[in-house]
Amino acid sequence: MSDRLSHLDKAGRARMVDVGDKPVTHRVCVARGEVRMAASTLARITTGNAPKGDVLAVARLAGIQAAKRTAEWIPLAHPLPLDSVRVHLTPESGDASGEARLLIEAVVATHWRTGVEMEALVAVGAAGLTVYDMCKSIDRGMSLEAIRLVRKSGGKSGDWERPGEPPPVGDG
Amino acid sequence: MSDRLSHLDKAGRARMVDVGDKPVTHRVCVARGEVRMAASTLARITTGNAPKGDVLAVARLAGIQAAKRTAEWIPLAHPLPLDSVRVHLTPESGDASGEARLLIEAVVATHWRTGVEMEALVAVGAAGLTVYDMCKSIDRGMSLEAIRLVRKSGGKSGDWERPGEPPPVGDG
Amino acid sequence: MSDRLSHLDKAGRARMVDVGDKPVTHRVCVARGEVRMAASTLARITTGNAPKGDVLAVARLAGIQAAKRTAEWIPLAHPLPLDSVRVHLTPESGDASGEARLLIEAVVATHWRTGVEMEALVAVGAAGLTVYDMCKSIDRGMSLEAIRLVRKSGGKSGDWERPGEPPPVGDG
Amino acid sequence: MSDRLSHLDKAGRARMVDVGDKPVTHRVCVARGEVRMAASTLARITTGNAPKGDVLAVARLAGIQAAKRTAEWIPLAHPLPLDSVRVHLTPESGDASGEARLLIEAVVATHWRTGVEMEALVAVGAAGLTVYDMCKSIDRGMSLEAIRLVRKSGGKSGDWERPGEPPPVGDG
Amino acid sequence: MSDRLSHLDKAGRARMVDVGDKPVTHRVCVARGEVRMAASTLARITTGNAPKGDVLAVARLAGIQAAKRTAEWIPLAHPLPLDSVRVHLTPESGDASGEARLLIEAVVATHWRTGVEMEALVAVGAAGLTVYDMCKSIDRGMSLEAIRLVRKSGGKSGDWERPGEPPPVGDG
Amino acid sequence: MSDRLSHLDKAGRARMVDVGDKPVTHRVCVARGEVRMAASTLARITTGNAPKGDVLAVARLAGIQAAKRTAEWIPLAHPLPLDSVRVHLTPESGDASGEARLLIEAVVATHWRTGVEMEALVAVGAAGLTVYDMCKSIDRGMSLEAIRLVRKSGGKSGDWERPGEPPPVGDG
Repeated sequence: MSDRLSHLDKAGRARMVDVGDKPVTHRVCVARGEVRMAASTLARITTGNAPKGDVLAVARLAGIQAAKRTAEWIPLAHPLPLDSVRVHLTPESGDASGEARLLIEAVVATHWRTGVEMEALVAVGAAGLTVYDMCKSIDRGMSLEAIRLVRKSGGKSGDWERPGEPPPVGDG
Repeated sequence: MSDRLSHLDKAGRARMVDVGDKPVTHRVCVARGEVRMAASTLARITTGNAPKGDVLAVARLAGIQAAKRTAEWIPLAHPLPLDSVRVHLTPESGDASGEARLLIEAVVATHWRTGVEMEALVAVGAAGLTVYDMCKSIDRGMSLEAIRLVRKSGGKSGDWERPGEPPPVGDG
Repeated sequence: MSDRLSHLDKAGRARMVDVGDKPVTHRVCVARGEVRMAASTLARITTGNAPKGDVLAVARLAGIQAAKRTAEWIPLAHPLPLDSVRVHLTPESGDASGEARLLIEAVVATHWRTGVEMEALVAVGAAGLTVYDMCKSIDRGMSLEAIRLVRKSGGKSGDWERPGEPPPVGDG
Repeated sequence: MSDRLSHLDKAGRARMVDVGDKPVTHRVCVARGEVRMAASTLARITTGNAPKGDVLAVARLAGIQAAKRTAEWIPLAHPLPLDSVRVHLTPESGDASGEARLLIEAVVATHWRTGVEMEALVAVGAAGLTVYDMCKSIDRGMSLEAIRLVRKSGGKSGDWERPGEPPPVGDG
Repeated sequence: MSDRLSHLDKAGRARMVDVGDKPVTHRVCVARGEVRMAASTLARITTGNAPKGDVLAVARLAGIQAAKRTAEWIPLAHPLPLDSVRVHLTPESGDASGEARLLIEAVVATHWRTGVEMEALVAVGAAGLTVYDMCKSIDRGMSLEAIRLVRKSGGKSGDWERPGEPPPVGDG
Repeated sequence: MSDRLSHLDKAGRARMVDVGDKPVTHRVCVARGEVRMAASTLARITTGNAPKGDVLAVARLAGIQAAKRTAEWIPLAHPLPLDSVRVHLTPESGDASGEARLLIEAVVATHWRTGVEMEALVAVGAAGLTVYDMCKSIDRGMSLEAIRLVRKSGGKSGDWERPGEPPPVGDG
């Protein structure tokens, strides 16, 4: 890793990094996070009369759509084309404490001069916040936790994996 | 609190809640979160040759700008005018473990028919992800934690405070 | 109805109509349209192994989200807040000819100085195009038909109903 | 054509198709549609004191601009660069019945890994809705009809033409 | 006028001003600017075979559309509804020096808690830049000059007029 | 230079130029402009208790972000990926007349089929308007002047420099 904040110039002013000299390569990033909630809230999302999945469907779409517009949310991110975005949501039922979690994983791929870390992280963030939005009328105490980069491949800096993470969920 | 997921209709399909019958009142929401990072990363953000504050300035703006466009990130959120958005970033130096935190607080106010919980949460999320973007070249292991609603006032459902939270930071 | 194209000034140049003198009233518009497709395509959308509803869920969301941003798609439309947007999708199985239809209805409400005809029509258009996008790999011949305003209430010009239309589908 | 809804994964969940393995080729799509209106409305658009063409100019631009942002209208569409967008509007005067039509044709080209069907269809939809917006003060009964893909070239699935369509209008 | 930069808090950090205590009043702002160009370029815009007005029509629309999205261009501007936006373009033929000017005027009105200075200025800027875009293939040397606020009414700070300006052009 | 307005077709109607036959080359554009203001306003921006730079930091970001979305502000501009955007702000203290200037320079680079003139000009415009926004509470009389293309390299039409301009400021 570099020892420099690449988004600041020598005088410390914000800039967009110049990626013009980087080669176009296949790049894939995986990010994860989770929504912590009451076990009863998760049950409402995943069971009952409501067609299973509409909260999940909306959250999944929110993640995909936000990823596509990452350069609008993140001021110094590059606008770039994407090959694919996938968002996986995995309910994990609560333990004895009554707390449950909805696990979020986003996988983003491109052929471009710069990586898609931010696209994957933005997808996780938007999906998680959308779950909050849809469930806040019954559980204001939910929180988003552990939004993190998990895996990165392609590009000059090489592949990277966060230690201790399980393999990606999705393959579709 | 309701016992119903207000963004799903009776058949469980996604919808935008009808706020037409709600009164226009003054509503304020406070949300918080934090970026967990290496103590050395936080030091790079807050000290050294770089003009103190440019990472923070960019993150603060990212939060403000994202809040204004919450209805684009969050599929079922209402488009609405805002009175103000403030984002406060408070470095908290690392403990013995070498881990430090940047605390994020967003305060959003409106006079409108619906609350601004999502606007405050989106501001926190975008500010945190922007910190990640600006520092990822030196610390890929950072994570966003504990993005949560902290306080809510105005509206029919009344005021609400998350237990155990310190008072808001900012007043400007 | 007026006998003037309100979006052109006296010299015929495009302008945004001035709504500043209009009262804030409760306004609701209903628009409809349909996607014509092979009966086998509709069957793929509504039955089978795939979880019933995901094409419909995506289309519904696309309609809601596009309605919120009508002022970006329609150059002279006013940016305005919305009370609610609902999109209903009703499969209508094919007749002997092997052709089927997916009926789309959007209901948009606001308290504002101008109507939401365009918001309702944009919702129908975006939902219909999204169905096309999701099914084009199996049925390129689909078409969108009869996108039209069906009902309008509130505002100085009074209520209006398109003759011969059935009552609105949705109530949620 | 495939026998699979490519925007749903094996479990039927929405996803963005992965186009990473597709070659970058020159791709062109043509879409069409029409606005049906009173003959007197069409006359107002195309003749009279008003500078001929401003309704048409606004609609043409609306189509071009919407095409560029297709990935924002259509949730699972890929963000991609475009080589060109052209929108042609052809008035077709009314028959004995007093009904007239404005024909819309959009031609979109790119060098990319995926086609531009949706970009062409979105251009037609936005142009047509904009005509509605600009003329609704004199003719609420207008409708958009027959929005359809007409021609497609480039890409693995090969060229395709909708049977029975006249050749493209425009060349500029 | 204040002696304080209202977009900085006491510690000098960027913020969105809180307009929650300001009354909703009728506010109108007028801004102006001009595009300086070769006289032959202006002649190409306003005469000849080309239908008089299409460069002007595109620029006018660009100004209107950008005004509606001012809060996206200007980081600390408030998102707000608008009553009307009008953009007037007045060719002023060249003098002996061979230099000509296209005068731009934007008039924006709202009923809101904050003024629309930025909306009017953004409209002028976007219209001017669009003229540049459309004519750059024949005149790279054009420049935008004197983008300025000309008039402001409504709001607590009262009415204001820039000295020495002619009255507004447009009334439509 | 061409003798044709490339954004109009033979019949004078607006269109997006087809860049499909142009080669992908490295293209860089530099644009400049300035904000004219009271010397006391510039002093407030650059000195005093306020942390030097926050007005400048916000304006710089506004320029970078607007450049990325040029195709949304400029109706016929192509959506394209960018390699880098840099915005430099140079205060130039006032002369005897009490008038000072803030010089703005934007440098934008891409590898693409079309140039980035508009991206550089849009960055200058947005940065300048943002300075106006942040200082308008103390100096309504500010104006934006001399927004112009200064340098262009890459592409078939070859390199170009505006006569009499100093070399670019920034290198970062």
